[in-house]
Amino acid sequence: MLIVMRRDATTEQIEAVIRAIENRGFAARPIPGGDRISIGVLYNQGAVDAAIFQELPGVKETIPVTRPYKLVSREFQRHDTRIPIGDLVIGGDRLLIIGGPCAVESEDQVMTIAEHVRNAGGDILRGGAFKPRTSPYAFQGLGEAGLKILAKARDAFGLPVITEVLDLACFDMVEAYADIIQIGTRNMQNFSLLRRAGESRKPVMLKRGMSATVDEWLMAAEYIMTEGNPNVILCERGVRTFVRHSRNTLDLSAIPVVRRESHLPVFVDPSHACGFRDQVMPLARASAAVNAHGMMIEVHHAPEMAKCDGGQSLLPGQFEILCRQARAIHEIAREG
Amino acid sequence: MLIVMRRDATTEQIEAVIRAIENRGFAARPIPGGDRISIGVLYNQGAVDAAIFQELPGVKETIPVTRPYKLVSREFQRHDTRIPIGDLVIGGDRLLIIGGPCAVESEDQVMTIAEHVRNAGGDILRGGAFKPRTSPYAFQGLGEAGLKILAKARDAFGLPVITEVLDLACFDMVEAYADIIQIGTRNMQNFSLLRRAGESRKPVMLKRGMSATVDEWLMAAEYIMTEGNPNVILCERGVRTFVRHSRNTLDLSAIPVVRRESHLPVFVDPSHACGFRDQVMPLARASAAVNAHGMMIEVHHAPEMAKCDGGQSLLPGQFEILCRQARAIHEIAREG
Amino acid sequence: MLIVMRRDATTEQIEAVIRAIENRGFAARPIPGGDRISIGVLYNQGAVDAAIFQELPGVKETIPVTRPYKLVSREFQRHDTRIPIGDLVIGGDRLLIIGGPCAVESEDQVMTIAEHVRNAGGDILRGGAFKPRTSPYAFQGLGEAGLKILAKARDAFGLPVITEVLDLACFDMVEAYADIIQIGTRNMQNFSLLRRAGESRKPVMLKRGMSATVDEWLMAAEYIMTEGNPNVILCERGVRTFVRHSRNTLDLSAIPVVRRESHLPVFVDPSHACGFRDQVMPLARASAAVNAHGMMIEVHHAPEMAKCDGGQSLLPGQFEILCRQARAIHEIAREG
Amino acid sequence: MLIVMRRDATTEQIEAVIRAIENRGFAARPIPGGDRISIGVLYNQGAVDAAIFQELPGVKETIPVTRPYKLVSREFQRHDTRIPIGDLVIGGDRLLIIGGPCAVESEDQVMTIAEHVRNAGGDILRGGAFKPRTSPYAFQGLGEAGLKILAKARDAFGLPVITEVLDLACFDMVEAYADIIQIGTRNMQNFSLLRRAGESRKPVMLKRGMSATVDEWLMAAEYIMTEGNPNVILCERGVRTFVRHSRNTLDLSAIPVVRRESHLPVFVDPSHACGFRDQVMPLARASAAVNAHGMMIEVHHAPEMAKCDGGQSLLPGQFEILCRQARAIHEIAREG
Repeated sequence: MLIVMRRDATTEQIEAVIRAIENRGFAARPIPGGDRISIGVLYNQGAVDAAIFQELPGVKETIPVTRPYKLVSREFQRHDTRIPIGDLVIGGDRLLIIGGPCAVESEDQVMTIAEHVRNAGGDILRGGAFKPRTSPYAFQGLGEAGLKILAKARDAFGLPVITEVLDLACFDMVEAYADIIQIGTRNMQNFSLLRRAGESRKPVMLKRGMSATVDEWLMAAEYIMTEGNPNVILCERGVRTFVRHSRNTLDLSAIPVVRRESHLPVFVDPSHACGFRDQVMPLARASAAVNAHGMMIEVHHAPEMAKCDGGQSLLPGQFEILCRQARAIHEIAREG
Repeated sequence: MLIVMRRDATTEQIEAVIRAIENRGFAARPIPGGDRISIGVLYNQGAVDAAIFQELPGVKETIPVTRPYKLVSREFQRHDTRIPIGDLVIGGDRLLIIGGPCAVESEDQVMTIAEHVRNAGGDILRGGAFKPRTSPYAFQGLGEAGLKILAKARDAFGLPVITEVLDLACFDMVEAYADIIQIGTRNMQNFSLLRRAGESRKPVMLKRGMSATVDEWLMAAEYIMTEGNPNVILCERGVRTFVRHSRNTLDLSAIPVVRRESHLPVFVDPSHACGFRDQVMPLARASAAVNAHGMMIEVHHAPEMAKCDGGQSLLPGQFEILCRQARAIHEIAREG
Repeated sequence: MLIVMRRDATTEQIEAVIRAIENRGFAARPIPGGDRISIGVLYNQGAVDAAIFQELPGVKETIPVTRPYKLVSREFQRHDTRIPIGDLVIGGDRLLIIGGPCAVESEDQVMTIAEHVRNAGGDILRGGAFKPRTSPYAFQGLGEAGLKILAKARDAFGLPVITEVLDLACFDMVEAYADIIQIGTRNMQNFSLLRRAGESRKPVMLKRGMSATVDEWLMAAEYIMTEGNPNVILCERGVRTFVRHSRNTLDLSAIPVVRRESHLPVFVDPSHACGFRDQVMPLARASAAVNAHGMMIEVHHAPEMAKCDGGQSLLPGQFEILCRQARAIHEIAREG
Repeated sequence: MLIVMRRDATTEQIEAVIRAIENRGFAARPIPGGDRISIGVLYNQGAVDAAIFQELPGVKETIPVTRPYKLVSREFQRHDTRIPIGDLVIGGDRLLIIGGPCAVESEDQVMTIAEHVRNAGGDILRGGAFKPRTSPYAFQGLGEAGLKILAKARDAFGLPVITEVLDLACFDMVEAYADIIQIGTRNMQNFSLLRRAGESRKPVMLKRGMSATVDEWLMAAEYIMTEGNPNVILCERGVRTFVRHSRNTLDLSAIPVVRRESHLPVFVDPSHACGFRDQVMPLARASAAVNAHGMMIEVHHAPEMAKCDGGQSLLPGQFEILCRQARAIHEIAREG
């Protein structure tokens, strides 16, 4: 952290700031500048609470310098993390495409869609058995019955399965059925859930919080990694902005930033980002164009009857076109 | 919901939309307009997924009309909810002021601050025993030892105690010690936690999510109320915006909106909203000026040594001035 | 507009709302619903000020229904607007790529970069002679001398030229030199400037305001079109959000929305959206992937010496790769 | 500016960064830290373009340190700027209240409202003769006829007049009639207009841009001051956020920040911030509570017939109550 002193700060004020830094167990390094002095704070573990120094007499401003994450950082591990799932490798050269319904509604529904996903060239099957819903009156998911349906589809079509875990109470159950455990946007800072995910031996997909900075998102991944699970997949899904023509605003510049800052693989979920089918195809192609490691797409064969988010689900035919377009764009984007 | 058709929508398209509405079990009511037709969707329970109809041929736009909440609505209960806590009434005529440290650090610390809070005219003592921290390397709270310290302060100074619950695992414990259970901003849509809070007989303070709309916030309160707990207190604590001079942007217009839409009492937390001590006093006065039912303020006698959020804590002397100013402003604001 | 009444609204209140609508010269159409009545407002010209009705007794809410724009709307003109510039057609099948420096600094600089742009396959040359700068102490552009340099480069390399106009005072001069007149993000709602642009016979590129909705952006284009200039090109350049890893957040879902709502061509400026060179390439590829009609890219052969925005300028070699990648992606995306 | 190097930056990379700094005419000061080196950039005039250094090999991050404004800064002038207008002093001890209609509609309308404003204890009369409207089809103001009406009301009731200037073309005319010239939110970065206002001898009220940071707002004031006009009044009017229950979100923490950073007086406009009458009163009281120097309130005796923003205008009786409440709160807030 850097503490910038006021131009008219007195020697006593400067010394008091240095003492306050040292009282906290850090080292203070004064840096004389053109017309004012700044003081560096060194040897701190994790983030320093800037506000403590902000209020001392003579202080103009405090500026954080180093980022608080470690294990997730590319400075800590230079090479990309690669996570094998069956025959697939997450974080490798192939663009991985996850497809499936928002919610598991019935065995017929899942089997029908899973077949479409596999035939279109999808790699992984998605489907929610526990659904986080804004309203207590909305469909909340089938629970374990839904997980069993997903397992059946996996066996039938050879697609690994990703599904969301909502809380500590259902974690063991979800973990038993899923190949990849998803932590949703509303739980990105559910720290107990992150710690539990860190104890799992299954890969975890961590969606970005609706208004999380990339730093906060990486710190949430750090919670999982500190408990011993190195297999974290990040997933950008749009952030909340003033914009009203789409549900969220997909922040695609997060992909190159994450790839530079971290060694973890990063996916994109364009379906939840926009909320409207006619925006999903272009945003999905754009996700391939920015060099994401994969994408997650909602697919439904009868979206007008879906119990959840039907309006953003692609039809099977659209999904097939998308897989083809996205893989072609991935080849172009990969060169740099 | 209102479905607006394109100007050139055909009769077949209009009829298909009507059928889609009726297939879902709703009633459809066509509304001829100046240059296009709209179709109302009636008798829906809870929210209708607009996106389903958005994508049908000939549809220009879908517009939600009624709000999805019920129990929290002032249309459902006209009179203000009043929640007795000992001799106090939350939601009544007295402006209630909660004061105390961000985190419980030691018995000495809490007893010292609690005495200041009581002497300054504060009504309720706050203090966190379980702390949600962005970094896994930051101080996470004293746990049950912290709760015991809070209970001791309550006995010594006669102040009811509010403290945060982080997850299902520690809920019973927090519930046993607290007079008011706080659900933090990161947990506003932790639906399992909301349901558990709904089973409690203790009042629950529900902080607004960092990027939640008022509708989503009220729906989260609805989760608590549907489980049988009518004693919900809302707390505005700032929302995330592009602004960088404060941690969040305090959304004070939410107070008159919540008071019009809902019968539940609504507080303000200016400390977390801004993150800087010199902004807390003005924002706290402003909270009284907009007719909030109460406010929650961080107080620390030695903020430069605080383990958490010291920079936004008021000194005891400032807290005393604030209590006096806020109560005087409350008297002025109450008349209308 | 739709006026939703409270559940307990009285007949007198409903009649008073109807009278208020009719007093304004509109037609009122009551729509009985499940548990409350709504009232449609018909035959209004342009937008109705919702707030007028919002405050009448018994009114719960007012909801805008129709969009206020006309000439820019695809409901008004179904076919795409195509704008010929020399041998090029803006809004046609070819992805148009604009390249060049942020600011015109010298003849050498512009001639060097223009040659790179042409050789890499760029279609149009950009360069600012009048620069809008946050600070009055920053480089403000070369003025007419800069315009003359651009004209020289056009003659030498056969590239049409786009350059920004800042105010009414310099409009005639910019108009005389430019092939396309650019109106910048800070001037999107400079209505006098928009009207003057509407009187021009040169095509106008209208950048989206930093926090403008798509509706406001289209209304700004409507200002230009109402004065008689049909040749408006829209340009998405990122919106301001809470995000800090890029200068703005590029809103790519605006592209399909604009293409559905309007017949005007729409470009993307990824350089200003992100502000960092290593994000420009992926976002530019993404712009082709969402089917924009073109893109505008900053290019500089010596960005570390640029007087303005050097850090976001591509090197000539990068621009060449980008042109190739973007055109290949455009071919893939065009099919649907 | 501070340039943070990667942990593994080589000596060559560090030296290249130092050379790049010195090539720009700045001084470089290396600052060894715990596990990485940082390099300070000194003696820069105005802001340094961080992006130039961001992209050099071995650089992790660049962090701006000093603020680019000078004349507006409290470091430049310690005492508050006070601006006399007739018998009033803007920036002094009295809370100044501006009242009046959004738009001048007729002589009768303005004379009626001005009398109410004066009788309620308002200090200054507002009214727009040139209106910036999102739609070209909306009422655009009466122009000079409106200015003449305002002048008549000034003579009749002894209230100084504030009115908005939209562009260079109408500046002389507005300047001739107005006591205070208002620059609206959409023109905050209309730099030609700011410069022209800097040449005026009339005080200028500069509204904050819809998505402007406080730094950008102060830089806009710097544009006016560099041209020789020291009499700038700042006015907070809400910023654009994801929130939908009010038109904008009033950023009241900007008031203490501006008062600390700058010597210029700062007002609040709660009417445009919220857009709804029932939010104006609480937000106006809150504006007094945060120690703004004044406020600007829309007042209309027949708001349901107003041509512009009627729904946010207070009735004369409400304005009278507000003046009384705001002055009482001001007395309380002034003590600190």
